[in-house]
Amino acid sequence: MTSIDNFWAVVPAGGAGTRLWPLSRASSPKFLRDLTGTGRSLLQGTWDRLVPLVDDRFLVVTGETHRAAVAAQLPAIAADAIVAEPSARDSMAAIGLAAAMLELRDPDAVMGSFAADHVIADPVAFGQAVEVAVAAARDGWLVTIGIDPTFASSAFGYIYLGDALAGHPGAHTVREFVEKPSLDKARAYLETGRYRWNAGMFVVRPSVLLGLLAEQDPEFAANLRSIAAAPDTLAQRWSLLPKIAVDHAVAEPAAAAGRVVVVPASIGWDDIGDFDSLATLLEDADSGSITVLGDRAQVRSLDSTGLVVPAGGKLIAVLGLDDVVIVDTPDALLVTTRAHAQGVKELVAGLKDDGRTELT
Amino acid sequence: MTSIDNFWAVVPAGGAGTRLWPLSRASSPKFLRDLTGTGRSLLQGTWDRLVPLVDDRFLVVTGETHRAAVAAQLPAIAADAIVAEPSARDSMAAIGLAAAMLELRDPDAVMGSFAADHVIADPVAFGQAVEVAVAAARDGWLVTIGIDPTFASSAFGYIYLGDALAGHPGAHTVREFVEKPSLDKARAYLETGRYRWNAGMFVVRPSVLLGLLAEQDPEFAANLRSIAAAPDTLAQRWSLLPKIAVDHAVAEPAAAAGRVVVVPASIGWDDIGDFDSLATLLEDADSGSITVLGDRAQVRSLDSTGLVVPAGGKLIAVLGLDDVVIVDTPDALLVTTRAHAQGVKELVAGLKDDGRTELT
Repeated sequence: MTSIDNFWAVVPAGGAGTRLWPLSRASSPKFLRDLTGTGRSLLQGTWDRLVPLVDDRFLVVTGETHRAAVAAQLPAIAADAIVAEPSARDSMAAIGLAAAMLELRDPDAVMGSFAADHVIADPVAFGQAVEVAVAAARDGWLVTIGIDPTFASSAFGYIYLGDALAGHPGAHTVREFVEKPSLDKARAYLETGRYRWNAGMFVVRPSVLLGLLAEQDPEFAANLRSIAAAPDTLAQRWSLLPKIAVDHAVAEPAAAAGRVVVVPASIGWDDIGDFDSLATLLEDADSGSITVLGDRAQVRSLDSTGLVVPAGGKLIAVLGLDDVVIVDTPDALLVTTRAHAQGVKELVAGLKDDGRTELT
Repeated sequence: MTSIDNFWAVVPAGGAGTRLWPLSRASSPKFLRDLTGTGRSLLQGTWDRLVPLVDDRFLVVTGETHRAAVAAQLPAIAADAIVAEPSARDSMAAIGLAAAMLELRDPDAVMGSFAADHVIADPVAFGQAVEVAVAAARDGWLVTIGIDPTFASSAFGYIYLGDALAGHPGAHTVREFVEKPSLDKARAYLETGRYRWNAGMFVVRPSVLLGLLAEQDPEFAANLRSIAAAPDTLAQRWSLLPKIAVDHAVAEPAAAAGRVVVVPASIGWDDIGDFDSLATLLEDADSGSITVLGDRAQVRSLDSTGLVVPAGGKLIAVLGLDDVVIVDTPDALLVTTRAHAQGVKELVAGLKDDGRTELT
């Protein structure tokens, strides 16, 4: 396919992925890891998926400490396409700065922000949804892509669909963004057929995004534009920006004002939130055995199911455990179950509390 | 206590301890490992327990490949006290050769054979039982120490008690040695109060042992005596000896002939047959948490019970698993459950079948 004119990919590459410890670490976060066994990291997978849509119109916003790793993983990226945040200030600052930079660079720009650490099994369907989204964004809408839910998940926020958007087949107005629901509520959402998962994907003209932000917090928007106009002031001004997610800063109030649209799509999306979802993502159609992320020759199993990651350079033998999760790395080993995958966060917090930060 | 006159310890140090893989390996078998967290290997623990009873009358019979390791672990042992077998030929050859050597060396010798890889929690009670056994052995009996069973085990053979032995308070005749029973049968044995565990401990005058062997297999006994008389023929004659356990070669036929006595004893014995019994041995009185063999600072656990061996030099985090067994070593990791501990043998057999003998 040919790329979409003036369409820019903005890829926030942050987040420690604590629930994927010890694979994911502060020093080597989720987006830099190959979690799909394809030989490409999640960041590289994001690049592979977006480049056909944007050519070289690609910005990564990442932490200063990860700038070198990002450049190493994306050898084709332009030097000025990596925006390094001096510190993590949540997604509004990251995406807003990219918007302010693009506003100066390309008056006809439409930007799409896509996290660096998600997977999308169907890039063709993704590309089609993006095309619809870009067309709506050109008309001044804040557009999100809403994932058709495949099960009742309490791990994701939801988007409540409104009416079809005139002139943009495939797009709907958004009535409301709703927070992660209880499992019961998620089931009820699913039954209505009117809810989609919020994957945090926003497609919008930079000036529209900054305009919506300015309605909520004029100083924030002004500061972002000032930094973009004088990039050497980034270091000194960055820490003054509010720490807030783009959802709260812009998307939710804009939805309440009827200014957001959604393109529902079935694209095989997952944010790989924990080892349970990683196991689901990787498991063979014929389950009933151990799923291996890595070198299968390094794993022996008998009467076991679950996920094994042999990244510690040694043989792993598993016997008589169901839905087990075993993640071996050179300096830390995790053994848990798929049902306890969310609790890994607590384990890592405990390590930090005990001063074992070298492992986190 | 003072040692027992003319009493010799004979310690067969063999057996791979396959069910304790990957802690125990062919190259570094169970008896050379510290499985109790005391800082002493099982062989050293055996030495510590026996030296008060025998002074320097101590023979270890081990494989040629383990001679150096045995000497290194027992620096006080005499150079000629390590008998190295050119190959493993089961316990009758090992113990019989020691008997033939002692027959020449000390006409008043009584020998006691005790495996190098068992644990005994109460060495005082053990010493008292040995004293009773030695006294009976001086009178020409083949004497075994029968362990008072603490639960219905299907993992051990049993000794069926006969009448009290006149003149030797604490000793009984043996009616029969019985093979490892079913669990139901083991329960029935326990109820009678007449069965003891067979721990393979034999106390006997060397000439009595060889005489009993000669009644079953005169050539075997003659060959052992020839080798003892001309030790330089060991290498060439050893492989011609029958491969048979001392129980089958001597103890069972002698019991049938009414020539075996048993000293029942409560000595806290265990042969640490697998990780389940190791977990039982090590677990704290206040269970409900993870038992660690090794550096507890290397283990973090939440909502878990079982046994963790952090011998791989890295942190191990366990979350939400009951009765789990995790054994980490530099080149292999085992994850199983206490209930599956016996199946480790099958895992190791699979590794051998696949040519991964470097790990076994």
